[in-house]
Amino acid sequence: MKNLAAYMREPETLYLKEVPIPVPGTEEVQVRIEYCGICGSDVHYYKDGRIGSYAVEGDFILGHEVAGIVTETGSAVRHLNVGDRVALEPGLSCGECDNCKRGKYNLCKDIRFFATPPVQGALQNYIVYPANMCFRLPEHVSTKEGALIEPLCVGLHACRQGGVTLGSTVVILGSGCIGLMTAAAAKSMGASEIIVVDLFEKRLEYALKMGATNVVCAAKEDTEDRIARLLGGTGADIVIETAGSEKTVLQTAPLAKSGGTVVLVGLSARSVLPYNIGAAIGKELTIKTVFRYRNLYPVAISAVAGGKIDVLPVVTHEFTLEDAKEAFDTAVGDAESVVKAIIKLF
Amino acid sequence: MKNLAAYMREPETLYLKEVPIPVPGTEEVQVRIEYCGICGSDVHYYKDGRIGSYAVEGDFILGHEVAGIVTETGSAVRHLNVGDRVALEPGLSCGECDNCKRGKYNLCKDIRFFATPPVQGALQNYIVYPANMCFRLPEHVSTKEGALIEPLCVGLHACRQGGVTLGSTVVILGSGCIGLMTAAAAKSMGASEIIVVDLFEKRLEYALKMGATNVVCAAKEDTEDRIARLLGGTGADIVIETAGSEKTVLQTAPLAKSGGTVVLVGLSARSVLPYNIGAAIGKELTIKTVFRYRNLYPVAISAVAGGKIDVLPVVTHEFTLEDAKEAFDTAVGDAESVVKAIIKLF
Amino acid sequence: MKNLAAYMREPETLYLKEVPIPVPGTEEVQVRIEYCGICGSDVHYYKDGRIGSYAVEGDFILGHEVAGIVTETGSAVRHLNVGDRVALEPGLSCGECDNCKRGKYNLCKDIRFFATPPVQGALQNYIVYPANMCFRLPEHVSTKEGALIEPLCVGLHACRQGGVTLGSTVVILGSGCIGLMTAAAAKSMGASEIIVVDLFEKRLEYALKMGATNVVCAAKEDTEDRIARLLGGTGADIVIETAGSEKTVLQTAPLAKSGGTVVLVGLSARSVLPYNIGAAIGKELTIKTVFRYRNLYPVAISAVAGGKIDVLPVVTHEFTLEDAKEAFDTAVGDAESVVKAIIKLF
Amino acid sequence: MKNLAAYMREPETLYLKEVPIPVPGTEEVQVRIEYCGICGSDVHYYKDGRIGSYAVEGDFILGHEVAGIVTETGSAVRHLNVGDRVALEPGLSCGECDNCKRGKYNLCKDIRFFATPPVQGALQNYIVYPANMCFRLPEHVSTKEGALIEPLCVGLHACRQGGVTLGSTVVILGSGCIGLMTAAAAKSMGASEIIVVDLFEKRLEYALKMGATNVVCAAKEDTEDRIARLLGGTGADIVIETAGSEKTVLQTAPLAKSGGTVVLVGLSARSVLPYNIGAAIGKELTIKTVFRYRNLYPVAISAVAGGKIDVLPVVTHEFTLEDAKEAFDTAVGDAESVVKAIIKLF
Repeated sequence: MKNLAAYMREPETLYLKEVPIPVPGTEEVQVRIEYCGICGSDVHYYKDGRIGSYAVEGDFILGHEVAGIVTETGSAVRHLNVGDRVALEPGLSCGECDNCKRGKYNLCKDIRFFATPPVQGALQNYIVYPANMCFRLPEHVSTKEGALIEPLCVGLHACRQGGVTLGSTVVILGSGCIGLMTAAAAKSMGASEIIVVDLFEKRLEYALKMGATNVVCAAKEDTEDRIARLLGGTGADIVIETAGSEKTVLQTAPLAKSGGTVVLVGLSARSVLPYNIGAAIGKELTIKTVFRYRNLYPVAISAVAGGKIDVLPVVTHEFTLEDAKEAFDTAVGDAESVVKAIIKLF
Repeated sequence: MKNLAAYMREPETLYLKEVPIPVPGTEEVQVRIEYCGICGSDVHYYKDGRIGSYAVEGDFILGHEVAGIVTETGSAVRHLNVGDRVALEPGLSCGECDNCKRGKYNLCKDIRFFATPPVQGALQNYIVYPANMCFRLPEHVSTKEGALIEPLCVGLHACRQGGVTLGSTVVILGSGCIGLMTAAAAKSMGASEIIVVDLFEKRLEYALKMGATNVVCAAKEDTEDRIARLLGGTGADIVIETAGSEKTVLQTAPLAKSGGTVVLVGLSARSVLPYNIGAAIGKELTIKTVFRYRNLYPVAISAVAGGKIDVLPVVTHEFTLEDAKEAFDTAVGDAESVVKAIIKLF
Repeated sequence: MKNLAAYMREPETLYLKEVPIPVPGTEEVQVRIEYCGICGSDVHYYKDGRIGSYAVEGDFILGHEVAGIVTETGSAVRHLNVGDRVALEPGLSCGECDNCKRGKYNLCKDIRFFATPPVQGALQNYIVYPANMCFRLPEHVSTKEGALIEPLCVGLHACRQGGVTLGSTVVILGSGCIGLMTAAAAKSMGASEIIVVDLFEKRLEYALKMGATNVVCAAKEDTEDRIARLLGGTGADIVIETAGSEKTVLQTAPLAKSGGTVVLVGLSARSVLPYNIGAAIGKELTIKTVFRYRNLYPVAISAVAGGKIDVLPVVTHEFTLEDAKEAFDTAVGDAESVVKAIIKLF
Repeated sequence: MKNLAAYMREPETLYLKEVPIPVPGTEEVQVRIEYCGICGSDVHYYKDGRIGSYAVEGDFILGHEVAGIVTETGSAVRHLNVGDRVALEPGLSCGECDNCKRGKYNLCKDIRFFATPPVQGALQNYIVYPANMCFRLPEHVSTKEGALIEPLCVGLHACRQGGVTLGSTVVILGSGCIGLMTAAAAKSMGASEIIVVDLFEKRLEYALKMGATNVVCAAKEDTEDRIARLLGGTGADIVIETAGSEKTVLQTAPLAKSGGTVVLVGLSARSVLPYNIGAAIGKELTIKTVFRYRNLYPVAISAVAGGKIDVLPVVTHEFTLEDAKEAFDTAVGDAESVVKAIIKLF
């Protein structure tokens, strides 16, 4: 029993180092991590050493999409036992600032989020974590699924922000991991039309598996024309942008119906982008945005446990901890075919 | 008793023509218009003959901000009597389309709105109108105030869309008629800070009269710095853009607090403008938009009647119907000093 | 081709009478009714001649749950053609009163609702109706399902009022037609726990078919104990009362979790009932109520068309128009076994 | 400098005892209490030794409406300094349970609230308290006003729960301290009609001072008739019950308009009361409830600071700490004339 952690220092470096096995405090548990998904943000830090003003300095552990097995519990922990499989919600909020007090803890001004510098990530064998942010997985939910709860929560939050409900018509721009999770979330909430748009046909095949009712290959057909035909001439109730490209951000307002809602999820390299303000005002659109998620781990886990959502189809690549560098290099090098790479630690 | 209507045909033309006095249908009333405000959209049609795809064709009557006296009532009209002073809500909706059925009648796909081509406007002595869209003015509310209910409703709708309530901190970009009405609306809803920003100091004087707690002259000081100081370092709960300029639209997201709301009201000549999408997502802002208003005439009238809002300070110029052309020429020529020009018909 | 209508005059009478086939106005369609469901309110009028202050006077046609085939269209009707199968939404609202203008058209003060005296019902071969309240059924949705859209909308509205969404835990008191439709609605919106309570085990079997995850027979076990065990000790997110009994109304607040929502749907013979106000305040519950529904026919039809909801299991009895009296007598006499009786007209 | 605390043990006993002056932890401040209001719940504990299942056991300090001066700060406290005047929000929530995470921290399952057994109250000279729950009073807000922020927050929360906004028509049943604070809150949010109902004319005089536009003396006139006349025949947008009597609870649904909202605030000795469920469903009312408040101290303080609300008129009796027993005996004995008794400690 030893604790290996995967550290980066300079961009495109990654090495394993043994570190002490941490001991849980009274309200914490020690978790043996079994799976860690690789997120787009991890790939950005690995490749560039920074995202905007967040810069990797010194040794840095990546990874925030994790699940594992409880191996020790603090003395005050009641709802978890050794042997429980758990998914770890990666943001620790202060509980006291204005946003926390209003229930928007994802916007906590002092949030400590795995693998957002200077907070270390979770790609290591053992970690200690507050018990109340560890969510028990029911018997028939695996820790591999548990590691995928994190990106699923982004998709669920996007649908919640957009008000997706029974009968909603939804357009999702981008068929990467978040776009796919959003499609699955929309389906689980009862959307009647879920149209996913992407440049790559391969990715659109995953969309159909995850719940899309129709897909549009933007490389081959005119997105707006096709969607107008699919929706009988009106725009969509909700348009969710997950690709973060200038082109797709600009498409959102024209694709929404009068009185509809746009949800912006995808971050772009540039903060300022052209937006069709005139169309948004003319239709009196509501534009919501998504920064991570809140209050969704239990919902996501129960949706997976109840068979409403199957998250496993998004996993295209699996690696061991020893091959972590190869995992990141693959994610950097083959963005088209890697939807979700995941690292199995045990 | 005759009915003169002010027609335009080509841009920058305006002439009076006598037309028949219309007779009310069973559920309509005949109203002798006493005041008609000139709105920015009227000025655009007068100057350019069009706004976007809405083009003036043939003889066209401008004006949609009107109030007057009921001079005849249809046989089925119960709640109005001859002699009542009324404000006319200018949009007639179908009552049957999706948006009407959902209560968003301002987004009715078949709305007939005064002075939006091809629907004729209201700048004439006599008009017939559905009684249910004529709102009685209490004894101590004048028809001059009645004509100002229309732009006040835009300000009220902006504040409603933004969720302004007791204790809200509000930044309003632009101190034109709509910005000023928004300031008055924010005050009436209990906002604790109402900061109005404009380039012209003269306009900011009106803002202070209408309820601004602070004003910022963007020509003389850095807007973001000043507002940060006024609000103790955090952004505003709600940022309302009424100027429709590229610069002010771009300022909205940076000026809002984390978790806050932006309201876009002002239309610009260009539909696509640069927007700080990255800042909006990083703060998980909600961006609402305003297209006219709904369900607000009774609220606006009771706010004026109850002394919560004084709309008269926005009137900087008053003309007679005979001088209507001069009114429009003045509004075109002296945008800086004309906040609201109003035409007195009787 | 003739038009038979089923009239009642005195309680427990019903006879067929031939009436003229009505001709559609310009914005109306003529519909040949194929199915008409019998609702609890129909049964009340049939049995007692009145519900509260609504009294049957003179010849009266019952029935408001209908679907059929368009046999003629008015000259201005665009979206419907002869041969289309349609479900008829039974309330015609004024479009002009406060509640209509706010989108709550079900609360229209002048609503004309099928079979609510003095408005005649729809249990007849041919009817003319405004085209915009006739909703086309997709190819694979039958008119029998079409007639069941009406009670489904009540269930959907109950869930909407309660805020049912992915992961919600829902308790439904009463397993009659509305309780069952509510269970199906809750399932289609993603509820994770749907517990239906009734006195009769037979009815609970239907509940399991319609989407209940658990059922509680109140005749055999303690409802509160059992539900506490099923939900792990906390109350439900949403408790929906459809039985209209004094006992079940009183159970709602204790069964809800702190911060949860109660939805009251079922009407009781007595208007004033004991309610646990203290428990409601102690948990700061929100109590919503349901009066019919609004804006839900398209949602309900698409949910049935998409296979998200199967309404047919609620139909326990089917009659012809000739046997209409037997249908009503059966509904009156065997309340335990009749969940939904439906009359086939062609 | 010594610390006297007012203890009760048996009902209707109260004595002062010197206790150690507490030392603040790193994130706490020590506050010298200047004013402590006496709340109805304090009076109940004093008189009966219990409220429902909450029983006073052993020595018990009453009081939770307090404000004072910071006399010492913990090492990590940044936003407060010695000498600052502060109001103390009396509930300490866990920050981790479901309700806390959703922003409903007033419903925290482990909340520690001043003077709710077994948590001691604040009627003593010195107290230590978490700095983030101490809200600084602006220069022109006194600590006497500071002690009244607590009941004001209940009134504000009632109005928020009811959705009071510009133009709302509001009926408030009960003109005790909470009813009066609710009237002031409704006025500050822009309500156009604020009708306060009480049995005692004397109390209604206070209502007029606090913002009521009309008052109804239920001992002299028929409440429903009078209100129907005042509101032009329709019910109120929002009806807020603060008296907690069987009669007034039963009046709420009939007094509300179709589609309106009822807010239940007042607790009664009996938990189960008759309620007009039929009227509530027929009008599709929303019934909200109030358990304390959340996120309102800053709002309340800024409303007082900005002159939007004057809380001082509710104070009818003032005592010193030495006369604390007399204060409680007066509150018990003269419920009609005591609106708010307050104890001045320094």
